[in-house]
Amino acid sequence: MQDTVSYQELYRFTNSVFLKMGCSTTDAATATQVLLSADLRGIDSHGVARLTGYVRLWEAGRINTSPDIRIVHETPSTAVVDGDAGLGLVVAPYAMQVAIGKAKIAGTGWVSVRNSNHFGIAGIHAMMALKHDMTGIAMTNASALVAPTFSVERMLGTNPIAVAIPAGDQPPFIADFATTTAANGKLEILQRKNEPAPYGWVLDKEGKDSDDANELKKGGLLLPLGSDREHGSHKGYALGSIVDIFSAVLSGASYGPWAPPFPAYVPMPEDMPGKGLGHFFGAMRVDAFRPAEEFKQHMDQWIVRFRNAKPAPGHDKVLIPGDPEREMETLRSVEGIPLPESLVKELKEIGDKFGVKF
Amino acid sequence: MQDTVSYQELYRFTNSVFLKMGCSTTDAATATQVLLSADLRGIDSHGVARLTGYVRLWEAGRINTSPDIRIVHETPSTAVVDGDAGLGLVVAPYAMQVAIGKAKIAGTGWVSVRNSNHFGIAGIHAMMALKHDMTGIAMTNASALVAPTFSVERMLGTNPIAVAIPAGDQPPFIADFATTTAANGKLEILQRKNEPAPYGWVLDKEGKDSDDANELKKGGLLLPLGSDREHGSHKGYALGSIVDIFSAVLSGASYGPWAPPFPAYVPMPEDMPGKGLGHFFGAMRVDAFRPAEEFKQHMDQWIVRFRNAKPAPGHDKVLIPGDPEREMETLRSVEGIPLPESLVKELKEIGDKFGVKF
Repeated sequence: MQDTVSYQELYRFTNSVFLKMGCSTTDAATATQVLLSADLRGIDSHGVARLTGYVRLWEAGRINTSPDIRIVHETPSTAVVDGDAGLGLVVAPYAMQVAIGKAKIAGTGWVSVRNSNHFGIAGIHAMMALKHDMTGIAMTNASALVAPTFSVERMLGTNPIAVAIPAGDQPPFIADFATTTAANGKLEILQRKNEPAPYGWVLDKEGKDSDDANELKKGGLLLPLGSDREHGSHKGYALGSIVDIFSAVLSGASYGPWAPPFPAYVPMPEDMPGKGLGHFFGAMRVDAFRPAEEFKQHMDQWIVRFRNAKPAPGHDKVLIPGDPEREMETLRSVEGIPLPESLVKELKEIGDKFGVKF
Repeated sequence: MQDTVSYQELYRFTNSVFLKMGCSTTDAATATQVLLSADLRGIDSHGVARLTGYVRLWEAGRINTSPDIRIVHETPSTAVVDGDAGLGLVVAPYAMQVAIGKAKIAGTGWVSVRNSNHFGIAGIHAMMALKHDMTGIAMTNASALVAPTFSVERMLGTNPIAVAIPAGDQPPFIADFATTTAANGKLEILQRKNEPAPYGWVLDKEGKDSDDANELKKGGLLLPLGSDREHGSHKGYALGSIVDIFSAVLSGASYGPWAPPFPAYVPMPEDMPGKGLGHFFGAMRVDAFRPAEEFKQHMDQWIVRFRNAKPAPGHDKVLIPGDPEREMETLRSVEGIPLPESLVKELKEIGDKFGVKF
């Protein structure tokens, strides 16, 4: 059972909730656009499904809806931004804009962020660079759920990496992926369907192979991209670690197992080594390397060549990173966003709390 | 059957061969150090085992041993370097040095390279940044062997990524990995032992699962990190693509299936869209983000915490990226480098060709 709600209706509701939480008009608009970009692009786990989570963090005093977001250190091509415990949905676009501004002058801009919160989907921030003819990069650390290779302790988050690269006539290349084999959202889909998970996604809390999609609720562990040592999990572990270090150790945020949890009922870790969650953003002007038109022609050739690579049996085409999300966005912009019944109930409860009709 | 040869002896021999190929004294020394760093660090597939390959490329006129390596475009934080068809072993350190120089002034430096050749192990170039209190990044495209998700065509190389991050009292964090589930070198080890490969490493040329370690010789395909769609191969495909684009489309090198092949007997691709192989390097000054001492203290805490994560059953400790290679380097610096009999024979043949005793 699900309802389908138009983007405009969902926008009106979500924006009103952020306003009621105390966000300024511009911050509420930014937060709403970033949050709902996940729903539009089909990454349902990171969109309005998380609104209740943000509200609870705010109620627990862990989100500041009138933050003084500011640059605390900078060089010609770098900056550290302190998010003042603001919504990551607002802090991230601020920081990405700083990276873009640096790139305009120095060729590239790199911004590490501390004292932030969850920022929605990484891809939407990386994509901010595209209209400036820049490649955009975005990553973030997150609450620890992932066991490093040879370990049975939750040490890293799903720590996504997004890279958006402009093209010419072709749509841009947009990669956006968790550095785990499967993200938590994929498990949630299986939970709703009451189906098992493929082996290689999770371990139980003792470190045994498991196909239980509910394993994380029982103290289990998410696996790094590669699943096991034989299939390269040490590479996924390294990638997740690099995201953690660039986002949090470079900036002074809280890292590894000390990353602040998203569920507000989970107590904050003791002896946190830094402030809040961390992010890392990059912007590279294409013409800092070669003329933009020339680069775009070659990106078009790259994309067309890969799209026309010989398909495997049972498949009709090869996808370019970003294709599925773009198709979904086109569809949902017109047809609306499907919301499971349980989520509609949750949103109505938020609406009642704030006096906003859903 | 294998011989063990001291690093000094292998250095003398390799350096002499590069000199005989026409390299300058400094270029021969650089190329030798870079090439043999692979043998020291236990990545045997990328070290002196490739010397014959480099010699053959030189004989085929595909390597220029007196190149005019130069910056062809730059901004405060970026540059494009043209390697003039030089040895990647020499072009890469030049370009990494440019990145480091940019970082000293602009905070970070990013260099894309065209018209180069194979550069040995990525890690050794990234590590150049460490002594400057910088994080180093190195990547390269390579001859196409890898099938994108849903494809059965060789479109990407093993396209490695290396990231070296300085620490304080702890040894640095050094990740260096192919963006495939397993690199070609791992298959070569199994071939020598006449053992099968784990499923998920290769496909046969029709796209069927295979455990044949010799599959690539029969037109088979390497798989991106993640192995199959269910286990995230679209993420490995995206990573390999990003390396290809940053290294070759940004710089004007030849990309994707048009990347020049390492074996000199393989004809060059037709209609190459750029010049030679491409690399991409980055250097980020730690104190462009926060004071270096503060950062290093936190990196030490990060490393110690991860090293002490609860180990999985059957394992006694969790490794930090770079640990195995550093231990191997310590051992082999003292005990020498083991060379399989077939390689000793190959090196003697090179020695005879150039009048250099092995």
